[in-house]
Amino acid sequence: MSKGPKVFLVGAGPGDPELLTIKAQRILGQADVVVYDRLVSPEILAMVAPGTARINVGKQPNSHPFPQPEINDLLVKLAQSGRRNIVRLKGGDPFTFGRGSEEAQVLAAHGIEVEVVPGITAASGCAAALGIPLTHRGLATGVRYLTGHCRDDADLELDWDGLADPDTTLVIYMGKANIAQIAAEIMVRGLAPSMPVAAINSGTTERQSHLFSTLGDIADDIRKAGLEGPVLFVIGRVVTLAAGYYQRREEANVVQALHQAGLA
Amino acid sequence: MSKGPKVFLVGAGPGDPELLTIKAQRILGQADVVVYDRLVSPEILAMVAPGTARINVGKQPNSHPFPQPEINDLLVKLAQSGRRNIVRLKGGDPFTFGRGSEEAQVLAAHGIEVEVVPGITAASGCAAALGIPLTHRGLATGVRYLTGHCRDDADLELDWDGLADPDTTLVIYMGKANIAQIAAEIMVRGLAPSMPVAAINSGTTERQSHLFSTLGDIADDIRKAGLEGPVLFVIGRVVTLAAGYYQRREEANVVQALHQAGLA
Repeated sequence: MSKGPKVFLVGAGPGDPELLTIKAQRILGQADVVVYDRLVSPEILAMVAPGTARINVGKQPNSHPFPQPEINDLLVKLAQSGRRNIVRLKGGDPFTFGRGSEEAQVLAAHGIEVEVVPGITAASGCAAALGIPLTHRGLATGVRYLTGHCRDDADLELDWDGLADPDTTLVIYMGKANIAQIAAEIMVRGLAPSMPVAAINSGTTERQSHLFSTLGDIADDIRKAGLEGPVLFVIGRVVTLAAGYYQRREEANVVQALHQAGLA
Repeated sequence: MSKGPKVFLVGAGPGDPELLTIKAQRILGQADVVVYDRLVSPEILAMVAPGTARINVGKQPNSHPFPQPEINDLLVKLAQSGRRNIVRLKGGDPFTFGRGSEEAQVLAAHGIEVEVVPGITAASGCAAALGIPLTHRGLATGVRYLTGHCRDDADLELDWDGLADPDTTLVIYMGKANIAQIAAEIMVRGLAPSMPVAAINSGTTERQSHLFSTLGDIADDIRKAGLEGPVLFVIGRVVTLAAGYYQRREEANVVQALHQAGLA
């Protein structure tokens, strides 16, 4: 144990409590206080010891989340208050979106020790849950994670040309509000409307729901489906490998063409 | 428990045994046989129960790894041999590189039940270990994972134009042999020679070693350092946030320019 206070930025993984790491479980068990947000599932919060203080920064009384600077200040104050083991529990992996790095920088600037405990990303968790590999020889040589949500609701400014690469799987976090624009921009730059898409909500939990679609249809399909809460999108040929993909898509013949071309 | 045999494709994470998931630990404890490869660390193999059969497909007597079709056949035969719980343990995440998806497809084609247990990627593990966020507001809007190694040692064919994006962190798996070419191709397309690079070997284990460099110097630096075994590269402005980056780089003034420009 360290002598001074320490803040652990801990990845809670995609939702299933069994997908926490052994290390995350150990550190949660030693925590004096746990600061968590809305992406941490109720099943995971149930793993925190009953006597441990918990602070929900995902929702204020007016149902807005706490602004990031207030969360940063809170972590600094907790470390300066005499508590030894402060856990900042974040959905997924702390260093893949989620602003864990901003918290780490502020804490380090105050001379507070920080340790990052990586977590299973929503991408890996959802991919495993649906049977969609993020890479697969002949279908995807790599994978790209991006966010479909902008700071302060500004316009999306993404490298659209670079995104329109049929050999790279795209995983889009927080893209529900902008999926119509995203799909349109990358189709204009050459990705086929038949390119498969999966959309997943609450992946790896008992509340998991998903749908299969294509770039051309996803905006309509997501609106009709009315998925609640954050949605993760996976765009790419690898989606055809999901169990149930063919049963769920009427456009199976389009995808079969991929297979006939030796691409699946 | 299922009635028939089942193959679990289990992510072993980046190396530290505490970075296995709780689920992976449980499934390893129930395994009849564990098939593993060279990316699984000795510390993790020590977690397998003493009486459990283990098969190393990472190295044949001639010190070549087993060809993938032989591994596929082995998994099918183990499932057909009357064993109930077959664990295929793979470094990192089974569906991010590592050919887990090919194994899943072959098993499914034989009617054998498959369950994928996601793992912490080498990228997330190494990022946490070095204090490098994969995304950070103002420095990287997304992250891209790719492999720097080709099938059958063919020429690298990557979307070089798309890769030369200063707003996206690049994580390159298995890139040691080709890092000179990779760096040259993306510099020709506009990424600055001063762009920071981290190279990590055996990340999250006691054998972890790393170096900090830049795109312009990485090929020379990696050759001089003589890192053994697989090396993971992280390329992008986020590398400047690593603890120790400035102490390790003589070109600190170049990076300071990034900070002065408000980019870090």
